[in-house]
Amino acid sequence: MEKKTLKVEGMSCGHCVKAVTEALSAINGVADVNVSLEDGEVFFSHDSALAPLETIRAAIIEEGFKVPA
Amino acid sequence: MEKKTLKVEGMSCGHCVKAVTEALSAINGVADVNVSLEDGEVFFSHDSALAPLETIRAAIIEEGFKVPA
Repeated sequence: MEKKTLKVEGMSCGHCVKAVTEALSAINGVADVNVSLEDGEVFFSHDSALAPLETIRAAIIEEGFKVPA
Repeated sequence: MEKKTLKVEGMSCGHCVKAVTEALSAINGVADVNVSLEDGEVFFSHDSALAPLETIRAAIIEEGFKVPA
């Protein structure tokens, strides 16, 4: 498991935090998901074979947020 | 059924709109719930015997928003 941080744009409230947290936690190979609403960041650990970064980015975008490159 | 509009403070995104819409729609005696995120307002019809305004205000507050008097 590798620790990562991604910037997430567009989170405005606790519901957004919950949406991102639940979306990432549901991915096999992702653990320890934590979201900072203030900083617009998500912290997590992932197994890059099971859950490559592109899968994680796609899951966040699917929830309606932006993940700047 | 009587048409009403209430001001709701603190809605910042589509998840908030959904939370308020679902909370009010679940109340017996409330129908036609519509939320304007831009204007911070909720529109609905209610049967004031089944669903008095105080019940509706309490449901919105329960979701974490403010309903100014």
